[in-house]
Amino acid sequence: MRAFRMTDWGSVPSHAEVPEPVPGPGQVLVRVAGCGLCRSDLTMRQMPRAVGERLGWRMPFTLGHETAGWVAAPAADLAEGTAVALAATASCGRCWFCVRGLESGCPHGLTGRGYGRDGGLAEFVLADRRGVLPLGGLDPRHAGPLTDAGATAYHAVRRAVPRVVPGGTAVVVGAGGLGAFAVQFLRVLTAARVLAVDPDPARRAYAEEAGAHETLPGVDRLRRIGADAVLDFVGTDETIAAGIAAVRPGGAYGLIGSAGGRLDRPWFGTLPRDGEVYTFQGSAIADAQEVIALAGAGLIRNQVEEFAFEKTEEAYDRLASGTLTGRAVVLLQ
Amino acid sequence: MRAFRMTDWGSVPSHAEVPEPVPGPGQVLVRVAGCGLCRSDLTMRQMPRAVGERLGWRMPFTLGHETAGWVAAPAADLAEGTAVALAATASCGRCWFCVRGLESGCPHGLTGRGYGRDGGLAEFVLADRRGVLPLGGLDPRHAGPLTDAGATAYHAVRRAVPRVVPGGTAVVVGAGGLGAFAVQFLRVLTAARVLAVDPDPARRAYAEEAGAHETLPGVDRLRRIGADAVLDFVGTDETIAAGIAAVRPGGAYGLIGSAGGRLDRPWFGTLPRDGEVYTFQGSAIADAQEVIALAGAGLIRNQVEEFAFEKTEEAYDRLASGTLTGRAVVLLQ
Amino acid sequence: MRAFRMTDWGSVPSHAEVPEPVPGPGQVLVRVAGCGLCRSDLTMRQMPRAVGERLGWRMPFTLGHETAGWVAAPAADLAEGTAVALAATASCGRCWFCVRGLESGCPHGLTGRGYGRDGGLAEFVLADRRGVLPLGGLDPRHAGPLTDAGATAYHAVRRAVPRVVPGGTAVVVGAGGLGAFAVQFLRVLTAARVLAVDPDPARRAYAEEAGAHETLPGVDRLRRIGADAVLDFVGTDETIAAGIAAVRPGGAYGLIGSAGGRLDRPWFGTLPRDGEVYTFQGSAIADAQEVIALAGAGLIRNQVEEFAFEKTEEAYDRLASGTLTGRAVVLLQ
Amino acid sequence: MRAFRMTDWGSVPSHAEVPEPVPGPGQVLVRVAGCGLCRSDLTMRQMPRAVGERLGWRMPFTLGHETAGWVAAPAADLAEGTAVALAATASCGRCWFCVRGLESGCPHGLTGRGYGRDGGLAEFVLADRRGVLPLGGLDPRHAGPLTDAGATAYHAVRRAVPRVVPGGTAVVVGAGGLGAFAVQFLRVLTAARVLAVDPDPARRAYAEEAGAHETLPGVDRLRRIGADAVLDFVGTDETIAAGIAAVRPGGAYGLIGSAGGRLDRPWFGTLPRDGEVYTFQGSAIADAQEVIALAGAGLIRNQVEEFAFEKTEEAYDRLASGTLTGRAVVLLQ
Repeated sequence: MRAFRMTDWGSVPSHAEVPEPVPGPGQVLVRVAGCGLCRSDLTMRQMPRAVGERLGWRMPFTLGHETAGWVAAPAADLAEGTAVALAATASCGRCWFCVRGLESGCPHGLTGRGYGRDGGLAEFVLADRRGVLPLGGLDPRHAGPLTDAGATAYHAVRRAVPRVVPGGTAVVVGAGGLGAFAVQFLRVLTAARVLAVDPDPARRAYAEEAGAHETLPGVDRLRRIGADAVLDFVGTDETIAAGIAAVRPGGAYGLIGSAGGRLDRPWFGTLPRDGEVYTFQGSAIADAQEVIALAGAGLIRNQVEEFAFEKTEEAYDRLASGTLTGRAVVLLQ
Repeated sequence: MRAFRMTDWGSVPSHAEVPEPVPGPGQVLVRVAGCGLCRSDLTMRQMPRAVGERLGWRMPFTLGHETAGWVAAPAADLAEGTAVALAATASCGRCWFCVRGLESGCPHGLTGRGYGRDGGLAEFVLADRRGVLPLGGLDPRHAGPLTDAGATAYHAVRRAVPRVVPGGTAVVVGAGGLGAFAVQFLRVLTAARVLAVDPDPARRAYAEEAGAHETLPGVDRLRRIGADAVLDFVGTDETIAAGIAAVRPGGAYGLIGSAGGRLDRPWFGTLPRDGEVYTFQGSAIADAQEVIALAGAGLIRNQVEEFAFEKTEEAYDRLASGTLTGRAVVLLQ
Repeated sequence: MRAFRMTDWGSVPSHAEVPEPVPGPGQVLVRVAGCGLCRSDLTMRQMPRAVGERLGWRMPFTLGHETAGWVAAPAADLAEGTAVALAATASCGRCWFCVRGLESGCPHGLTGRGYGRDGGLAEFVLADRRGVLPLGGLDPRHAGPLTDAGATAYHAVRRAVPRVVPGGTAVVVGAGGLGAFAVQFLRVLTAARVLAVDPDPARRAYAEEAGAHETLPGVDRLRRIGADAVLDFVGTDETIAAGIAAVRPGGAYGLIGSAGGRLDRPWFGTLPRDGEVYTFQGSAIADAQEVIALAGAGLIRNQVEEFAFEKTEEAYDRLASGTLTGRAVVLLQ
Repeated sequence: MRAFRMTDWGSVPSHAEVPEPVPGPGQVLVRVAGCGLCRSDLTMRQMPRAVGERLGWRMPFTLGHETAGWVAAPAADLAEGTAVALAATASCGRCWFCVRGLESGCPHGLTGRGYGRDGGLAEFVLADRRGVLPLGGLDPRHAGPLTDAGATAYHAVRRAVPRVVPGGTAVVVGAGGLGAFAVQFLRVLTAARVLAVDPDPARRAYAEEAGAHETLPGVDRLRRIGADAVLDFVGTDETIAAGIAAVRPGGAYGLIGSAGGRLDRPWFGTLPRDGEVYTFQGSAIADAQEVIALAGAGLIRNQVEEFAFEKTEEAYDRLASGTLTGRAVVLLQ
């Protein structure tokens, strides 16, 4: 079958012909409909061998961790042809974290489908039953991004929701793929005023379409606004400092963006009093389930730009250059 | 009546004769039995006038915010002679935070009894009914520290408790007055192994008496122990970095110590994944109530060293020099 | 001033002339703009003297516990003329429940403004500062019902919200004043499908306008629908049995209706597994604050029917006969 | 191998020779060390065929759902010889409940190891990796009851803990196997006074040894004691009514006992205001993990009475006649 693969450390991925995978016991064979592309795919090209091997990655592997398709052969309770998405976060299903539904804490989460193992940029892919999520009537060609961009943003919002009150304010810093999802989740799950910050006018416009009550080009005006929650999808020194300063006592600052920022100030007296600061990577299976439910109920939209499989390289170029509107999905069928 | 007072900005406090206070409507007149001394009292001597005035402090004022005594005149539902302690955290009782029982978030919390207003180092003191906490059979000469050193440590522990599981580990950094309380609270409210860190052997010994399963002289061995919670009563660069590194995914790091530390590393990838980082000042009235209940049930002990009122200066000197064993309480009666 | 009052046990209330109240220390004098009428006012006419006296009620007293108006004289931080509503639930402000923001648990909650003490069906009324809630731009002539019908429904919904998930279902049984508020709160605070049950077609129509996705005339079709939450504003044997049977494992059944129903079945095996069953009376001050915030943000509407003060008796008759559309408010100014 | 089995509906179980089970993919073969006996085993003798078949039970099957032993062949990350216990609650691992760690809500929970499928009263048994719980240094001959009697009691206590405050009271009704565990869990996880109720003086004595502060022979003195939580391991009309009446506003009543009791009173005005009433069956895998951690830390004891495998019938007779002290465990090795 056709696949789009990393072939070696530090190299550029490319199309290749590989054998169709054969499901082992408990595994589900999925015919891929569409697979979303993610910025982290681009960083894998720079992954040093030493780091990759420490994580347990094996070369070559097929890229793609935002995958959806159809069950290709009856498996467990799943009928052939069922439209499904695949949880993007890898998890072992049996550790202390997994048996509590906290898959983003699973120590086996750094190697998975599309990052160190064969992913969804191929005609077929394998998945454990536990991470196979029925889509109901949703179109599997577009559903992939719900499991990663969607679920990660949802994980961040779900954590903040108990601190966001009617009459309060929630701020989304960075209105790209994840941030635009976050704006939507905040609108359907809270009664707060939602403020989105992005220097890019097109993204601000999209955030407004997605439901933001107000948008700002920069974080400088956030200080002392007394937000219930700030979700920072950027994560530079500047956004961390401004985001922290924006939170009311008892509020939340969630850092999802991996720009490598720090806070160069004493913590005591600077962090929001009695608030919470959190960060994470990935999401729980339950997050992906609930995002799919929201999309299925028509409560959120998932803006995608379609690319044919043979145009995968072009799609990655567009992603790298920041010229996409919405998430890129590569259509496999 | 006699009182021990700050008389001016940047000056040393001293004994003075002042009129007995007269309770206004809704106020309770309390005959002070004992008043604990706190490090923050010492810092008030250095408070610049500009800062103090911005906080709304008025000079002169009587020091002492760890106060307990007896109701001096019947008030509301309180009979004369009832043994009571006074909530150390100032709060307005009507703001968004106060009506939710979140007094440590009250914007009026920075000016109160013993910090900018007349406190408990005097024969009598006034209090609003809301912060007057009956002591049952506890001795009011010693109960003052329960309301501040005790309640602050309790506030920190109460927040961490939901993340501390049987089989897990909780770490207390700094085994002084607050830390020793925290060790005790962790022992009665969780089934975790409790580890206390302090460079001072006498404090380590006290932490062990207080129930710590293990003690360490420094934070360097904390890294990667996978603690459910780290409560940092020190707050230097070193304890923050080591404390953060000690927390498991989903765990908590609570900063209570005001040593002014920072974290000089990127937050994403460094803060505990899916955990929570929090800091605060003060406590809620409910915290003080629950600490009093724990002491009343004999579940915690409150180690104090007694000083006569005329020895208040000596007591502060002992506090400043770090030679106290337990909290200093000045006896007023 | 004019007032509408209960004059004796078991009697019918009537208009009377009474002296204007004089605020004591800490009290706020409020010029009443409008006061909502509540079914519980009607039951007070039947209250036996023995019960009333046991509750500590004093005759005569002015009716009306859904009150809003303007601050009549500067008080504490409130400027004269500020539009305010008054928390409907009486609370002492200092008990174990009140210092935790759990006013509906306060043991002093059964005697208050409009039930045993002078209420809001008068030109002026007194309130403790703690229960005076600024209205911002909301019209105080109509805001009274937010503090009782609104806040009680909100209290029920707020409790259920953590159990209501995207893709799930929430059921409101009884789409009268409280139920219609509950439908709206569920729509703005959850992403669930909201189902309202009421035998009255007009109320079903109103529930749909208020946002219900579906309405049913009776509870018989609720069994085994696997609802995340059922909020029962009726509370008969029938609605309790059907409501309990409708809840999924881990869901919630909240009983707010006081129709006196029971459940004539074994609890084990019948109550929702791992779910929660709760009931309560009244609301917390925070509930009323948040309802006011929702109304102020235009997220809910508060349907009222206006009556002149001299038409108070007629308004009560309309309430008794069930011919009101929306909550009756009596205009005092 | 030898096994003790149900051979038909409505019949008495007996010893039999059966083939050793062969692990399928993902399954772990466990050599059984000991298996606890449970009252529910006795009720299976009366299970009507129609009910059993509706649940999906297959005859014959080996009894025993409180199983512990040693890994008999390396499986996944488990080395041969590792001491393990097996989660007693059956769960599918992939449903809405299981991916949230809420296995007691799993719809597949009514058919499992020892109830409709081959259980632990045999030399070997099979388990899915997810429910295999390493025991550390605990003795697998005695550990079986931790997974059911222990985990069920723990599930009940864990739910109540957030409502149990220092200075409060928690009540355990029924001080048998589960109740005695609950007393211990309440002592290590809360700072409340623990009260145990049982008509049997030997059980009251055991409850006191287990840490109860006070014991009572009957529930009649519970009314209006204002308990934070009542855990009812009996569940008759009488204990339900008295237990409900004992709970303070905001407290919890948990029903674990399956005696079939009802509450013949109106719910509104009778159930604890703002409290929660809950019931359930089984436990989550996390519950069993945490009970094992508590036992491993020496914080609870697990009183058992040993029986040789050939004495299984006698052990069941003793269980049926109520003459056991502690849980019966049948030793397989």
